[in-house]
Amino acid sequence: MSIDLNCDMGESFGRYKLGNDAKIIPFVTSVNIACGAHAGDPLVMKRTVELALAHKVQIGAHPGYPDMQGFGRRKMNLSPDEVEAFLLYQIGALDAFVRAAGGSLQHVKPHGALYNQAAQNRSLADAIARAVAAYNSDLILIGLAGSALLKMGEKHGLQVAAEAFPDRGYQADGTLIPRGLPGAVLENVEKIAENAVRLCRKGITVVQGKQEETYSVDTLCIHGDHPDADATAKAISDSLASRLIKVKALSR
Amino acid sequence: MSIDLNCDMGESFGRYKLGNDAKIIPFVTSVNIACGAHAGDPLVMKRTVELALAHKVQIGAHPGYPDMQGFGRRKMNLSPDEVEAFLLYQIGALDAFVRAAGGSLQHVKPHGALYNQAAQNRSLADAIARAVAAYNSDLILIGLAGSALLKMGEKHGLQVAAEAFPDRGYQADGTLIPRGLPGAVLENVEKIAENAVRLCRKGITVVQGKQEETYSVDTLCIHGDHPDADATAKAISDSLASRLIKVKALSR
Amino acid sequence: MSIDLNCDMGESFGRYKLGNDAKIIPFVTSVNIACGAHAGDPLVMKRTVELALAHKVQIGAHPGYPDMQGFGRRKMNLSPDEVEAFLLYQIGALDAFVRAAGGSLQHVKPHGALYNQAAQNRSLADAIARAVAAYNSDLILIGLAGSALLKMGEKHGLQVAAEAFPDRGYQADGTLIPRGLPGAVLENVEKIAENAVRLCRKGITVVQGKQEETYSVDTLCIHGDHPDADATAKAISDSLASRLIKVKALSR
Amino acid sequence: MSIDLNCDMGESFGRYKLGNDAKIIPFVTSVNIACGAHAGDPLVMKRTVELALAHKVQIGAHPGYPDMQGFGRRKMNLSPDEVEAFLLYQIGALDAFVRAAGGSLQHVKPHGALYNQAAQNRSLADAIARAVAAYNSDLILIGLAGSALLKMGEKHGLQVAAEAFPDRGYQADGTLIPRGLPGAVLENVEKIAENAVRLCRKGITVVQGKQEETYSVDTLCIHGDHPDADATAKAISDSLASRLIKVKALSR
Repeated sequence: MSIDLNCDMGESFGRYKLGNDAKIIPFVTSVNIACGAHAGDPLVMKRTVELALAHKVQIGAHPGYPDMQGFGRRKMNLSPDEVEAFLLYQIGALDAFVRAAGGSLQHVKPHGALYNQAAQNRSLADAIARAVAAYNSDLILIGLAGSALLKMGEKHGLQVAAEAFPDRGYQADGTLIPRGLPGAVLENVEKIAENAVRLCRKGITVVQGKQEETYSVDTLCIHGDHPDADATAKAISDSLASRLIKVKALSR
Repeated sequence: MSIDLNCDMGESFGRYKLGNDAKIIPFVTSVNIACGAHAGDPLVMKRTVELALAHKVQIGAHPGYPDMQGFGRRKMNLSPDEVEAFLLYQIGALDAFVRAAGGSLQHVKPHGALYNQAAQNRSLADAIARAVAAYNSDLILIGLAGSALLKMGEKHGLQVAAEAFPDRGYQADGTLIPRGLPGAVLENVEKIAENAVRLCRKGITVVQGKQEETYSVDTLCIHGDHPDADATAKAISDSLASRLIKVKALSR
Repeated sequence: MSIDLNCDMGESFGRYKLGNDAKIIPFVTSVNIACGAHAGDPLVMKRTVELALAHKVQIGAHPGYPDMQGFGRRKMNLSPDEVEAFLLYQIGALDAFVRAAGGSLQHVKPHGALYNQAAQNRSLADAIARAVAAYNSDLILIGLAGSALLKMGEKHGLQVAAEAFPDRGYQADGTLIPRGLPGAVLENVEKIAENAVRLCRKGITVVQGKQEETYSVDTLCIHGDHPDADATAKAISDSLASRLIKVKALSR
Repeated sequence: MSIDLNCDMGESFGRYKLGNDAKIIPFVTSVNIACGAHAGDPLVMKRTVELALAHKVQIGAHPGYPDMQGFGRRKMNLSPDEVEAFLLYQIGALDAFVRAAGGSLQHVKPHGALYNQAAQNRSLADAIARAVAAYNSDLILIGLAGSALLKMGEKHGLQVAAEAFPDRGYQADGTLIPRGLPGAVLENVEKIAENAVRLCRKGITVVQGKQEETYSVDTLCIHGDHPDADATAKAISDSLASRLIKVKALSR
């Protein structure tokens, strides 16, 4: 039994520092790097790619809505064509740094409101999958376990990876409780570590209409933007190790 | 005798339309497509790449300063590291559309203030050339004939192409008369067409210090943002044809 | 019988020109000036204020979502607190130019998606009205006839003005047919001029639930961004004059 | 003997937090609030104005270049007309929050590269002073002691206040050592506190050409963006108190 651990990185912007990338990266096997739309800038992207290569973790693009002030967390109303074009733009921009540094882009994981909307909105999910497949059909598409995004990824012939969040509360339909609502973000480190183990073993069970469905999980997201994010990362890592769940990057 | 004709394209932005791309493209052999920093947006980039492929012209990235309101024409004071990173970002973003559409990026030509500063500022020119070579050393770097940018391109092992502007006034040192000053932009179509022929035949003669040097020209820039830009393009084209100067894309 | 004619102006942005402000302004009594979020920039705002003062028309702020690439026409999902703060920001910014030029700001009219969402969303409408009243309770709030925005304006003690669009198609509930759908934008100049007269005489009749309600109209919007917008403006103006409907600015 | 202590505040932006405003504000008598161009956003501005009013400190606008990614610290090349318009825009935007909260704007202090360029560039300084005077001639203009900005402020009839920086190194001509160079930013708290006392007592002595001139100081800038900025603020405050230098806001 094995699981990939991923973390969103490269979310600083100019003078503004965010996240604890260097502290978290030893615990993860994949990183999703912001592409300058909802967070990040070209210099930050360059340095984060270098950090990832130095730590030999898998690199993914982490595209989001073009809304720096809202950190890509505010729903926007872009047409599927626009979403497809914004995705291509951001994936290409990030890949430039990866290629220039001699690395290889492995996956794409949308960010924030785009990620959440694409879990349910099929035309949005289709636009994202179309962009990824058009750019490079060897890329892995990461999305919420059980989401429309993963279904559309498969439709476009992409390898997909189902993600779960040990530190987030879920709604019955398998979507995340929106930030700002009670139960959205868990703080208890032990509880989070337990969730990580449970998600690996049992996956996510989702009620859709009258049906209940269980989805297995390929990768867990570790958030890096709390002051003690590294403690959480370590707790998850230790907890998995003690149950003999191997932490291992996704592979094609 | 032959010359490449290039034009800056894809400069619209959202609701804002600029240029006459569809009218000009039949007259040129290369296009430089804005990359969303000084002009352009992802949808515009996608459509402009498709237009270029349909017309079988060579495609280049046209990166500029991140200053949409100033259209990349205001000098900025970025460090060489920042410039290198911004270039990689924009080249990769544009290339995503080219690759997704099955094409191949051929060249890079910086825009506006970045282009003009890089004609003289060697560390800026070096940063640009470094970014292009790091991205893909098969790319051709277009710069002002006689400029520091071309020297730095050669230093980094790139094929370079010397550009001249038949509709712009020159200073004795080979740089362009800045926009806004008298003589910066020529309006007389016949004069512009004559300049095109002269530049092909005689190149540009530049006084640097006490030395006079003549540089040959590989590509002429045709501006597409006047209401009757197509008339100028046609006049240049006719004028070259009547002197048996062949219009032909750059090649590696 | 009298009516105010208003037009959105100052929508250019840097190198990007939009609208025919100078041609339209002789036909209107009020202008709504973009505030640099969805369109406009500080220099454009300054010049548009000067144009308005020279023509002795009433000046209003035309705030919109912070989305230049989407021209403020894409729905966003801002919290009421954010909307209130964005409104204060933009109203104050525009008023700076009005005050510096010795004029007086008379009204506020939200733009695009913000305007349309505030026609129905009461908490959004409340946030807008709150911002206007907090800034200056003498300002007139312009909104769609029959909209939640006008109700909230009245709740906050503001004078409100009901707007209608002679060149736009309406849905049964009194909202505009969204752009991009059939019937959203009328092109026939005679039809538009007839609509103008009808709207002045009969107002707008709206079906809300099982009730039908008729709202009178205080101001008509004339769009300025078509190539022949001045012809439409003249046709509306002539048509109103021939029916003895006086064109007259709103007054406190 | 008395001195004003000022601090730049409201520099957070969306998800990005910067500064220790709440910790520093008890030590200062004036705050300069970022206006959404180089830092800050409408919600941050609103909250910072409320914080300032709660602490009864004087409020100033802190306008900067429109360059969030560069934090307004990169030189730009705007025309004087553009600078004047950008200043009016930002001052008006900030004042909207001040007025809505029942306060009164007291001063304007430019930020970063704009501040430094205006210390020497007379046409830039003139544009800034023109904007401030046009907006409200009762505003106090804060600039570097001995700078062109203060001279231009006086020319436009403004009350001016000479600023000095106890934690920054100076060049012989009275300008600050640019950030990034050795000696630009002092770290030793005792040394900084000593500088504060010296600057109050002796002012700044500047060599301009062959002349030496001494300028008195009206306000000291305390930086709030270090982790232990409050310790520095306290040390300065204590040091001034022990020498019987009263800390007191500027007054008209």
